Amino acid sequence: MIGYDNLSRGSRRNIAEFESNPKFSFEQLDLNDYERLISSISGYHLKEPITEVWHLAANSDIPAGVADAKVDLRDTFMTTFHVLEAMKEVGIPRLAFASSSAVYGDLGNVTLTEDIGPLLPISNYGAMKLASEGLISAAAEAYLERVFIFRFPNVIGAPATHGVVYDFVKKLRADPTKLQVLGNGTQQKSYLHVEDLVTAMIFIRDNAKDKVNYFNIGSDDEGVTVRFIAEETVAAAAPGAEVCFGEGNRGWVGDVPRFHYSIDKLHALGWRSGSNSAEAMRKAIREIVKQEDL
Amino acid sequence: MIGYDNLSRGSRRNIAEFESNPKFSFEQLDLNDYERLISSISGYHLKEPITEVWHLAANSDIPAGVADAKVDLRDTFMTTFHVLEAMKEVGIPRLAFASSSAVYGDLGNVTLTEDIGPLLPISNYGAMKLASEGLISAAAEAYLERVFIFRFPNVIGAPATHGVVYDFVKKLRADPTKLQVLGNGTQQKSYLHVEDLVTAMIFIRDNAKDKVNYFNIGSDDEGVTVRFIAEETVAAAAPGAEVCFGEGNRGWVGDVPRFHYSIDKLHALGWRSGSNSAEAMRKAIREIVKQEDL
Repeated sequence: MIGYDNLSRGSRRNIAEFESNPKFSFEQLDLNDYERLISSISGYHLKEPITEVWHLAANSDIPAGVADAKVDLRDTFMTTFHVLEAMKEVGIPRLAFASSSAVYGDLGNVTLTEDIGPLLPISNYGAMKLASEGLISAAAEAYLERVFIFRFPNVIGAPATHGVVYDFVKKLRADPTKLQVLGNGTQQKSYLHVEDLVTAMIFIRDNAKDKVNYFNIGSDDEGVTVRFIAEETVAAAAPGAEVCFGEGNRGWVGDVPRFHYSIDKLHALGWRSGSNSAEAMRKAIREIVKQEDL
Repeated sequence: MIGYDNLSRGSRRNIAEFESNPKFSFEQLDLNDYERLISSISGYHLKEPITEVWHLAANSDIPAGVADAKVDLRDTFMTTFHVLEAMKEVGIPRLAFASSSAVYGDLGNVTLTEDIGPLLPISNYGAMKLASEGLISAAAEAYLERVFIFRFPNVIGAPATHGVVYDFVKKLRADPTKLQVLGNGTQQKSYLHVEDLVTAMIFIRDNAKDKVNYFNIGSDDEGVTVRFIAEETVAAAAPGAEVCFGEGNRGWVGDVPRFHYSIDKLHALGWRSGSNSAEAMRKAIREIVKQEDL
């Protein structure tokens, strides 16, 4: 198994426990450096044929991608383009891909099943995830054997590098008396803990049998509000701090205020999440409050 | 009005009648040359504010895009990316965009309404049109005032630079005794004449009132078969020639064999096509048979 990461957000410390495993190699490499990528993959492939790629690389700062479209073009889309080019050139048959609920855009108060339309994203991040799905689907028609598209929910857990809990904990460390929240706190989202996400992805890879498999992954509930997250974070990080809310129910351009995310298809396949949004959020808050490198 | 084209397929002869119009300018320019694009647009915009862009640039050779993903990346997607970047930088509020029925992929024998899902294209062309739609949708959320997305059907007419009639006429000029057809001839598609397409686009731009408007454009029928096209072309170009069919109902990877294309939404807006698929096809065949530069 080979891991590639440009370490723009990740850290080699996060995989320290695997570094001594003789079956695992890691290379710091940007997927957009196609020459290095193809040369590295070809080298490994010659020693032992590579049969599957898990492509999880992307920009994770959605507002940054709205401000400058080049961010998601490069990190969310061109990474997919280059992964596919390499798979075609080397001849690797299977791809697992981290897509996103952001491909659905803002369809209002409907239930988001995997087959819903239209797909009109409201952020460049969502657009470039949709673009990646399209390119993967076309590649499945032309040369891949099987693909797995995972539409991620909001994922939480440690080590966090960004996100609402991360921001709240940072603010409370700077000022333990007060927490200023963007928006009025009614924005509600479903959250999944990263450990449940990993089991779900592996479950889909092992059990879904179509050529192009695409699944929402998430918690089986309506989610929790920003107010809930703010209050739970205050309770864990700075008990007694005052929570102040702003106006409106959107944090920033490209953020989707509220949606019902169906995971019926994933349930029908047989998977169940270990925890609901509230439990996942409390667990993540406990972890992130302890995190030293914020 | 300013026209840009890299003239990779088009020809300046096609716009000869407008060249003397003082309200029209043309520049040979590749939209992917962003420095030249932004400098040119900014110059015009200073003289008279530009309020609307019609972006019709794309690769039109779908098999070439399947063989090499870089073709549609560059000509179908990055052209859109650069158009949007320029509109954001200069501050142009409205965009009309030529998308495609190829965004729907191969959904089988269902009726393709605009809101159907999933959108899993089977060609890189379809994937990069879907990617463009997504980016435009995100731009409408962030900085554009109004967008019009036209999902083109199969468009025919002269001057043709590619396509099934073009290929048939070329083959019959080389050998007027025989026409070899790819596939078994049962592949059926709906066609629209380019003149009807233009009236439909202008009708949508003038009448659709949403922020993000997206419409299928097409003929109100089930289309015509490849056998019909072959026989009509033979009748017009080389009467008596023998038509030979191959096997299977797909011409090439990425081609969609048969679909029902709904234009109910466009009808509800009030538009009606001047001709059905068979009439449009006969008209296009008559025009292309006369075309000298094949």
